[in-house]
Amino acid sequence: MVDEKHVVTPWDVSGAVDYKRLINEFGIEEIGPELLKRIEKIAGKNFMLDRKIFFAHRDLKWLLDEYDKGNKFFLYTGRSPSGPIHLGHLMPWIFTKWIQDAFDCELYFQFPDEEKFLFRKDLTYEDAQKYLHENMLDVIALGFNPKKTHFIINTKHADLLYPEACKVAKKLTYSMVKSSFGLDESSNVGQIFYTSMQAVPAFLPSVIKGKKMPCLIPYAVDQDPHFRLTRDILPKIGHHKPASIQCSFLPPLTGMDGKMSSSKEYTAIYSTDTPKEVERKIKKYAFSGGRDTLEEHRRHGGNPDVDISFQYLKYMFEPDDKKLREIYNSYKSGSKTSGELKQIVIEKINSFLKEHQKKRELAKKKVDDFIYKK
Amino acid sequence: MVDEKHVVTPWDVSGAVDYKRLINEFGIEEIGPELLKRIEKIAGKNFMLDRKIFFAHRDLKWLLDEYDKGNKFFLYTGRSPSGPIHLGHLMPWIFTKWIQDAFDCELYFQFPDEEKFLFRKDLTYEDAQKYLHENMLDVIALGFNPKKTHFIINTKHADLLYPEACKVAKKLTYSMVKSSFGLDESSNVGQIFYTSMQAVPAFLPSVIKGKKMPCLIPYAVDQDPHFRLTRDILPKIGHHKPASIQCSFLPPLTGMDGKMSSSKEYTAIYSTDTPKEVERKIKKYAFSGGRDTLEEHRRHGGNPDVDISFQYLKYMFEPDDKKLREIYNSYKSGSKTSGELKQIVIEKINSFLKEHQKKRELAKKKVDDFIYKK
Repeated sequence: MVDEKHVVTPWDVSGAVDYKRLINEFGIEEIGPELLKRIEKIAGKNFMLDRKIFFAHRDLKWLLDEYDKGNKFFLYTGRSPSGPIHLGHLMPWIFTKWIQDAFDCELYFQFPDEEKFLFRKDLTYEDAQKYLHENMLDVIALGFNPKKTHFIINTKHADLLYPEACKVAKKLTYSMVKSSFGLDESSNVGQIFYTSMQAVPAFLPSVIKGKKMPCLIPYAVDQDPHFRLTRDILPKIGHHKPASIQCSFLPPLTGMDGKMSSSKEYTAIYSTDTPKEVERKIKKYAFSGGRDTLEEHRRHGGNPDVDISFQYLKYMFEPDDKKLREIYNSYKSGSKTSGELKQIVIEKINSFLKEHQKKRELAKKKVDDFIYKK
Repeated sequence: MVDEKHVVTPWDVSGAVDYKRLINEFGIEEIGPELLKRIEKIAGKNFMLDRKIFFAHRDLKWLLDEYDKGNKFFLYTGRSPSGPIHLGHLMPWIFTKWIQDAFDCELYFQFPDEEKFLFRKDLTYEDAQKYLHENMLDVIALGFNPKKTHFIINTKHADLLYPEACKVAKKLTYSMVKSSFGLDESSNVGQIFYTSMQAVPAFLPSVIKGKKMPCLIPYAVDQDPHFRLTRDILPKIGHHKPASIQCSFLPPLTGMDGKMSSSKEYTAIYSTDTPKEVERKIKKYAFSGGRDTLEEHRRHGGNPDVDISFQYLKYMFEPDDKKLREIYNSYKSGSKTSGELKQIVIEKINSFLKEHQKKRELAKKKVDDFIYKK
C-alpha cells in the first residue's frame, strides 16, 4: 500500500498511517462492539482492544465459534531478528500473552532469522544470529507460559519448516509475491521464497501433532501481505485459513507518522535502555502536543492526540481508562504541562523496564526451555 | 540451450545432442590427452574417460594441482527422486564410485527430494518420498564406501542446508535464475529458490568440519546451468569454485536423440527390470543400426554408431577396448547380425542387473548407515 500519504509494507512504514483506509485496502474487518463483547465475556476486558489499538481482524467470529464448540485455537506470532527490541515490538506481544493466558493457548513464536539477512544488504548472517539470541530474551521476559510457548527458529528448525514451505511454495507464483511485496527482477531468490517459510507456523500443529487446529495470528498490520497470501494458499493444501487480529503501530518518539524503528535510535526506546537514557530520549525527542510557551499552554491547552508521551500511556502504560481520561483532560485543558506529562511517562516506562530487565536477565537461563524440541 | 536441433536443460533433453556445441555454449573444456594422462597416472585407466563419455570439465587441472600438493578433494553428486532408476542414472554414478576409490574421497550424495515435487505439477510430495527410498537403494547397491559416503536429503537435512542456501540466495537474483532455467512470472517461488539448495553440498565440508576443501562434481551435462551459477556465487561467499566433470547422456532405447527417461518406459531399462523385461525391451525397442534384410546386412554391414545395443556396450557394458573394437568391426562388416549384437547386450545387462538387484536387496538394511548424521 503506497500513496503520497502513507507507506505500509512489511519493510517500510512511513507517513501518517490511515487505518480506516488500510481496513478497506487490505480487506480486514473492524472489530465491532458485538465482537468486543463476545471476547470480553470469555477473556475479560483488555485496554488494547477497548482503545482500538488492536483494531481489525479476519475470521475472529469463526475462531470464537470453534472455541465455543470446544475446538481450541493456537497462537502464532513472530519476530525477525535484525536489531534490538523496542517498546513497539513489546506492545503486540504483551497482548499476545494476554490472549495466551485468557484462552489457555499454545503459542508458536517464529524467529525468521534469515528474513532480514535476505532483505538487508548490510545485515550479516552473524549479526542476525546475535540479535536472535538477544530478542529471545525479551520475549521470554514478558512471561509467556514456558510449557505452552514454542520458539521456532527458521534456520534451526528448517528441517521442520522447509518441507512444508515447499508445499506452500508450489502454490505461490513469482507474480503473486512480486505484486504483494513489491519485488522485482533484481530481488534475490531468498526474498522471493521467504514468505513460504512465514506461512508454515499457521498450520504447525498439523505437522507436529497431526492435529488440524484453528490458528490466531496477532500482528502489526504491516505484516498483512504475508498473511493474505497465507490465507489464500492454506486451504489449497488442506489446512484452515488462519484467523488474525491486527494492531496499529506504536508511534515513534518523533511524532505520529510512521512507526518506532530499531535502526533509528531517536525514534525508539529499547528494552535495555537505562532510566537515564529513557529520560533523555523522552525529554529530547518525544514529540510534544504542548504550546510554545507555558502561558499559551495554560490558556489554550495541549493536544494529547499528537503528544507522544500521552500516546505511550494510551498504547501501553496506563491501562486504567479513568486515569487516562483524567490525564487527557488535564493536558487538553492546559492544567497539566508537557513537562509533567513527560515525567509521568518516564516514570511509567522506567518502572516497566526495571521489571522487564530483571526478567530479561533471568531469561538467559531459560532460552533452551523455550526452543521447540523435535 | 535451445535451438531447432537439440534442447539441453535440467528438465528437458531432446534432439540430437551436439556435444561440441555444448562445450562452446556452456563454456566447459574438453578433456584433452594431457589431462587424461595425468588422471591415468594417479588413478589408472577408465574407459568412460578414454571413450569421451566423460568428455568435458571445469578446473580439473587446478583440482589435480591441489591434489598433488596434498589437498584432497571431495566429491559431490546427486539424484532428484522422481521415478525409478534406469541405466542412464547408474552410468555416471559408476564413474563417481571409480573416482571415490581411485582418489579415496569423501562423497556427499544429495537427494533433493523437493526439486521434482516443485517442478512437476503431477508429482505428489508422498510419491517423491517413495522414490527417495527406492533411489537410495540403487545408489548403495553400486558399492560406494559407506564410511566415506554421506547421503544429504534436502527435506531431512534442511536445518543444515537451508541456512547456507540463504547465503547463496542473497547473491542470486531472479533475473539470473530466470535466464538460466527459463523460469517466468508463473513459476512458483520454490522453483526460483531451488538452485540455492543444490549449491550447498559444493562447500559442505566448510560447514560441517570448518574445513575448506576442493570439490569435484561429476554430472550429466544438462545439470550445467545449476553449477555455472554455483561457480559464480561461491567465491563471493568465501568458498572455492567447485571443479566439475561432465558426461554425455546414455541414449534412450529408441535411438541416439535425447536421453533415457524414467517417465517413458519404452526408452529405459530400469534397475529392477527382470531378465525377461530386458530381453523384451532390447528386442522390441532398441534402435538397430542393421540393414532391412539379413542379405543386405551381410553385404553392406551395419552402423554401430547409431545402434543402441552397441552404444550400451560402449557406454557401460564392455570395458575391454579390444573386445569392443572387435564387435564394432564385425557389426560394421556385416559378419555380426543385429540379432547377435542384441543377444550380447541382453546378456551383459542381465548379468549386471542380477548382481545389482542382489546388492539392492541387501541395501535395504544399509540405508541408515549412509544418511548423514548431524
